[in-house]
Amino acid sequence: MPKAVYRRLESTWVQMPTDETLGHDSALHTSWSRDHPPALCVDSGTTVEFDCLNDSGPRITPDTESSDLPDTEFVGHHLTGPVAVEGAEPGDVLQVDILDVAVDDWGYTLIRSGERGVGLLPEEFPDPFLYHWDIGDEVAHFEAGIEIPLAPFPGVVGVAPAEPGEHATGPPRHVGGNMDVKHLTAGSTVYLPVAVEDALFSIGDGHAAQGDGEVCVSAIETPTEITARLTLRKEMDIEAPQFETTGPFTPAGRDEPTFATMGIRDDLMDAARDAVSRLVEHLHEHRGLSREEAYVLCSVAADLKINEVVDEPNWVVSAYIADSLFPDG
Amino acid sequence: MPKAVYRRLESTWVQMPTDETLGHDSALHTSWSRDHPPALCVDSGTTVEFDCLNDSGPRITPDTESSDLPDTEFVGHHLTGPVAVEGAEPGDVLQVDILDVAVDDWGYTLIRSGERGVGLLPEEFPDPFLYHWDIGDEVAHFEAGIEIPLAPFPGVVGVAPAEPGEHATGPPRHVGGNMDVKHLTAGSTVYLPVAVEDALFSIGDGHAAQGDGEVCVSAIETPTEITARLTLRKEMDIEAPQFETTGPFTPAGRDEPTFATMGIRDDLMDAARDAVSRLVEHLHEHRGLSREEAYVLCSVAADLKINEVVDEPNWVVSAYIADSLFPDG
Repeated sequence: MPKAVYRRLESTWVQMPTDETLGHDSALHTSWSRDHPPALCVDSGTTVEFDCLNDSGPRITPDTESSDLPDTEFVGHHLTGPVAVEGAEPGDVLQVDILDVAVDDWGYTLIRSGERGVGLLPEEFPDPFLYHWDIGDEVAHFEAGIEIPLAPFPGVVGVAPAEPGEHATGPPRHVGGNMDVKHLTAGSTVYLPVAVEDALFSIGDGHAAQGDGEVCVSAIETPTEITARLTLRKEMDIEAPQFETTGPFTPAGRDEPTFATMGIRDDLMDAARDAVSRLVEHLHEHRGLSREEAYVLCSVAADLKINEVVDEPNWVVSAYIADSLFPDG
Repeated sequence: MPKAVYRRLESTWVQMPTDETLGHDSALHTSWSRDHPPALCVDSGTTVEFDCLNDSGPRITPDTESSDLPDTEFVGHHLTGPVAVEGAEPGDVLQVDILDVAVDDWGYTLIRSGERGVGLLPEEFPDPFLYHWDIGDEVAHFEAGIEIPLAPFPGVVGVAPAEPGEHATGPPRHVGGNMDVKHLTAGSTVYLPVAVEDALFSIGDGHAAQGDGEVCVSAIETPTEITARLTLRKEMDIEAPQFETTGPFTPAGRDEPTFATMGIRDDLMDAARDAVSRLVEHLHEHRGLSREEAYVLCSVAADLKINEVVDEPNWVVSAYIADSLFPDG
């Protein structure tokens, strides 16, 4: 007897059939491996509801404080899966239709440059910082009257890699995984190259909103219920993920007045660092935010765009932030 | 007696006063230098109409063919200026309000990987290729029924660098120049750090449309008439250009169904190359375009977005192309 799930269609919620439900309690894993036993086996075309923990699982809760972070052990994304797709073979393509992403009313964003040196600006932000979000129906509420429109998506969507052994969930790979593409919202379709028999699909790392780049290393991290349809596409042949999406493409989900800082360097990563560092400085000076809050805001709502990669030897990356996020915008 | 110029405001054209007009005949230069004598001297707050040649000036005309490219000498962008702004000093900021960008009915896009090795995919496109565009009122017409919405902007907006001598126009620098930011459309404002006395502002390299990345090394290159207001901001202090814009942020000027390919690598440039190479292949296979045409389409209408730069050691860059560009979209 499938559990009823609901999908948001043009602002109304309609009930849809669910073929299978997969709870994180029976299907939790925190690494990729071709040897993880499937938690569920389905035929091609099956819709599955995935009950997903937040990225860090029980390690970060609403009671966690910034001062707890140095002692927190991060073991990998808490993923739900794997799902075996009957008949999938290496060389096939798995079509993943993301039908719904429902979020919790609590979320968090953390800066953990200090102990790990991760994120785009680790030298500028040596201290751990944890921000708890109050997630409403349409927006997540930030400091200084700033509101972030919700645009939920799974940060991790992937199939098991061909290489034997266990693999960290952090880096995205050609089989997908922790891609953090903010446009994989409900209504999107992502195509993954199958690398092992039965595909072994997993999903998780729910983000209520994120900027392109996810610069401070986390989005608005939140538990999610994700509904996705898994379809085998034997006739397709791809080397890396592809996707279809309707966005949102703009920092606030639409075209609108936006401010941007630029990085102009001979290395794209250096250019990205410069652009974000300058946007942090701008938000701190002009928008009443601490530098940590500004970095968090960049991670969840600023978009990194490559403006040009051909005017040798200098490339341009800009960091965009929409005026409408601010109370006077 | 100033010439009347017109600015498009919400789809209607209204006459506006022009303080100064600067023709390319009297103000052409193809390098940056603090020693170029100003072609015009203005007070802060002056609006100037710049009559600009296309990027390559008379070296590319509607009669030029692909086979002419190997013998064509490219000497630098054909810029209009410099304009001296009275009272500007190093450390000041020049605010440039871009009020109007009017384009010609002819434009071109070229692949010149062959003789120069430029562009994002020089090895894949060794032969020179020149495409002539028919530019209409709203769109530029391409092959296979594809239409590119016009979103004109100057590829080059800058002030003279502090370093003595002549400098190539190709690379963008901290004082601006060939930034190729497609969002510097009419209605945008760009802020440039002044590096020399009188600022010495120049503009040009008109693009009727461009994708983020400008991957094949040219946009829809076209002659333009650009109206801009130059205002000194002595109280500001910036290290690199900043800007305000209303977009367009999407490949086709709005949020809409879009297809994307991904590059997942430990270097952002490698990731960008992979994403574009895969989009070229996709457009060739599924959209009836030659590989050269597909590369051109990527340069003028596909957007490169940095999806994440923190999931070490692999970064994600995606190349987006809007469904609506195609006749069945």
